[in-house]
Amino acid sequence: MDNWLTYFSTELLGTMILIVLGNGVVANIVLKGTKGNNSGWIAISAGWGFAVTVGATISSALGGVAHLNPAVTIAMLISGWKQNIGPFSALPLILLGQVCGAIIGQIIVDIFYVKHINDTLSSDEKNNVLAMHATIPTHRNAFVNVFCEFIATAVLIATIMATRNWFGQSDWMGPIIVGVCVIAIGLSLGGTTGYAINPVRDLIPRIVHQLLPIKGKGKSDWKYSWIPVVGPILAGLVIGAAFI
Amino acid sequence: MDNWLTYFSTELLGTMILIVLGNGVVANIVLKGTKGNNSGWIAISAGWGFAVTVGATISSALGGVAHLNPAVTIAMLISGWKQNIGPFSALPLILLGQVCGAIIGQIIVDIFYVKHINDTLSSDEKNNVLAMHATIPTHRNAFVNVFCEFIATAVLIATIMATRNWFGQSDWMGPIIVGVCVIAIGLSLGGTTGYAINPVRDLIPRIVHQLLPIKGKGKSDWKYSWIPVVGPILAGLVIGAAFI
Amino acid sequence: MDNWLTYFSTELLGTMILIVLGNGVVANIVLKGTKGNNSGWIAISAGWGFAVTVGATISSALGGVAHLNPAVTIAMLISGWKQNIGPFSALPLILLGQVCGAIIGQIIVDIFYVKHINDTLSSDEKNNVLAMHATIPTHRNAFVNVFCEFIATAVLIATIMATRNWFGQSDWMGPIIVGVCVIAIGLSLGGTTGYAINPVRDLIPRIVHQLLPIKGKGKSDWKYSWIPVVGPILAGLVIGAAFI
Amino acid sequence: MDNWLTYFSTELLGTMILIVLGNGVVANIVLKGTKGNNSGWIAISAGWGFAVTVGATISSALGGVAHLNPAVTIAMLISGWKQNIGPFSALPLILLGQVCGAIIGQIIVDIFYVKHINDTLSSDEKNNVLAMHATIPTHRNAFVNVFCEFIATAVLIATIMATRNWFGQSDWMGPIIVGVCVIAIGLSLGGTTGYAINPVRDLIPRIVHQLLPIKGKGKSDWKYSWIPVVGPILAGLVIGAAFI
Repeated sequence: MDNWLTYFSTELLGTMILIVLGNGVVANIVLKGTKGNNSGWIAISAGWGFAVTVGATISSALGGVAHLNPAVTIAMLISGWKQNIGPFSALPLILLGQVCGAIIGQIIVDIFYVKHINDTLSSDEKNNVLAMHATIPTHRNAFVNVFCEFIATAVLIATIMATRNWFGQSDWMGPIIVGVCVIAIGLSLGGTTGYAINPVRDLIPRIVHQLLPIKGKGKSDWKYSWIPVVGPILAGLVIGAAFI
Repeated sequence: MDNWLTYFSTELLGTMILIVLGNGVVANIVLKGTKGNNSGWIAISAGWGFAVTVGATISSALGGVAHLNPAVTIAMLISGWKQNIGPFSALPLILLGQVCGAIIGQIIVDIFYVKHINDTLSSDEKNNVLAMHATIPTHRNAFVNVFCEFIATAVLIATIMATRNWFGQSDWMGPIIVGVCVIAIGLSLGGTTGYAINPVRDLIPRIVHQLLPIKGKGKSDWKYSWIPVVGPILAGLVIGAAFI
Repeated sequence: MDNWLTYFSTELLGTMILIVLGNGVVANIVLKGTKGNNSGWIAISAGWGFAVTVGATISSALGGVAHLNPAVTIAMLISGWKQNIGPFSALPLILLGQVCGAIIGQIIVDIFYVKHINDTLSSDEKNNVLAMHATIPTHRNAFVNVFCEFIATAVLIATIMATRNWFGQSDWMGPIIVGVCVIAIGLSLGGTTGYAINPVRDLIPRIVHQLLPIKGKGKSDWKYSWIPVVGPILAGLVIGAAFI
Repeated sequence: MDNWLTYFSTELLGTMILIVLGNGVVANIVLKGTKGNNSGWIAISAGWGFAVTVGATISSALGGVAHLNPAVTIAMLISGWKQNIGPFSALPLILLGQVCGAIIGQIIVDIFYVKHINDTLSSDEKNNVLAMHATIPTHRNAFVNVFCEFIATAVLIATIMATRNWFGQSDWMGPIIVGVCVIAIGLSLGGTTGYAINPVRDLIPRIVHQLLPIKGKGKSDWKYSWIPVVGPILAGLVIGAAFI
């Protein structure tokens, strides 16, 4: 496989699985009539953490960089792309792979749970259909919301940057520790904004929600949409700079 | 031990433990009066994932291939049996081991929970007795059901194929990562069809249910039975081909 | 440290921690007014599994054999003590360590939760005080009860025997996989008898319960007490013989 | 980086993350209107355990000692600082790092959940705001409370001391096993005092609570404050002495 194809395809595949499993668990817990309905915040936190572990394991095992998150890519760029990743030509391929993976992943989740999406909309619980695409905060306050997304993403990226060269020959520990970290972030720091901690994980599914050809699906909440982009990117810049 | 006996017996043992722990957890959660009654979807997802880890660990540690799933065996066949496994004579032994293991495993679960099966049937909750044998979808739609089983199994097999040669000297990581993947599939993609993701795990216990000498046990739902066979096998073919 | 002292003291320490954490989690979930009250079967299964991992890790790290369970010791004896452990003089030291550890561990749990034991007895929930000492089955039927304890213990011991020489230089994997196995047994096979799967874990705390100087503490259920001894020991004999 | 700066900064960073994730999970479960509200004791136990794993992993990966707890530091001091850590000048730097990390960490949690703190105080559930800073026992009895904190901390420190030199080249196992141990302590031994098991984790956030410029925030419960300091320190002394 050509090198540029590896950058693109492994990042696409990993991000796709991240979204399929990540927004899949939200769908299974919040949509009407699913087997996991009402299983609570622990299930959502565990599901997103395992989504990261599985997506990053597959991407890494196939030779990818396994960022699955533009905030991580930005941190790598700031702290030294040459040593961290290699050629600068990989940068657009990685970002494009993340975007394409998120689009395909969200479409898969929407087809997967199509019957339950319809049932949920019939009960007029439109917010739960939005929730399986993008995050919804409990309180709307730009400063606090950005602060929360910044801190939660900073914990994630600090874990990634600190451990990057630490596991010796056990490459496979990376996706496990980062998955544990994401479960921890969900349990501890997910209580306010619902922890996007990844611009692509929030913005792309929100666009898919906007375009979804289902009537009565409700609003896509564009007013909030900049926060899960700005907060994580800020964290990528700051933590990336701390690890120069 | 002869080599052919190893293929057969380790696959039988691993699949038996998979079914004992896997359908055991369903029994403990859905049957009447058990200690785990009503512990919810997280318990079922965790139980099935650990069932895979324990079954595959034992099978691998004893020198087996630890597929425990014909869809995995098919993916290995498509992507290159000679490099993946070895002699073609192993193929029927592995599949036969899976079938025999599932039969014995389900009989053990049925004896184990016999008192609670009777109590559950007395309360006329026949579906819960079927549920500890085979999967039951929330909605019946052939396309969506096959799609769900296909996607969920594809995530499983992609994880197995991608990581197969990645763990270096840490063979024991395979059953752990695959177990984590199965917990993730349960939490995220189990909400619609109940994630058979394994023809032998669904079809054989369904046959055992059909033959169960308990009156008033209810129907075995044969109309649905082809979906958890076809969906996973399709995934084995497609993902196997992707890893040629 | 003398070798015989190591056998005895590591087994005592590991079994003590097993009981402190194991019956501790039962106390936290079933006694009145605790912080973990009513946290369900998942908490109990997870707690016992982690109790095994922590107890066995400490015992192994200090140079012990980390059986923590006479059924495991018996399986080692049957399958070949010399190769498995070494000198026969270790046998009584290991068993004595298990008994002493269980006694001390249970006394610690009883002092730890003394206020909540009193509150629970005041509410006349005597069975919950017995439950933090010994197992109580949902149905009383000698054949089914022994069958359940036999199967559950057989899964445990098969995991231990199969993986014993498999982890290469990663000795620390043993306590982790066995802990995962015990969580799985709890979730899947704990629903009927409450999974003693260890004679010392059930009999010794039952004796402590009998001797507990608290009035109104209720009966120690001696009629059932032979089952969690006989079932696990049978499994030790059979699985031990299978691994000769 | 200078060596003394490493001692201080890694301990600060690790303790900060410990408190952010640890008291963060309590906030998410007990404050009003959070996404994790009412997720139960399992979530709190899991969250604190993962907090330890993430905090200690980051601290270790950056070259720190990763105590994050003065009781651990004391045990290292008693059992042999020179062999365990190195220069005595590191001692005050480590302790100061723990204190500063806890201060900053608690302030981050308080800003993070500021909206939910206000909502919780509006509902007059003042104890829940204290609970996300410091521990509150179910029963007030100096002997039993100290005993509980002593035993729970002893299990933690025994795990750390026993495994310290056991994982060979797998340094990263330490934070994982200690995290598992902390989950186990939460599930099994957290039911009475709420398991501070760390003087800095309880005392420093209590001081922050005292200084919090929010009216109607309630009392900081200073009467109880000495117990989560004395119990863990005693355990550090005793277990440290046992491992000389």
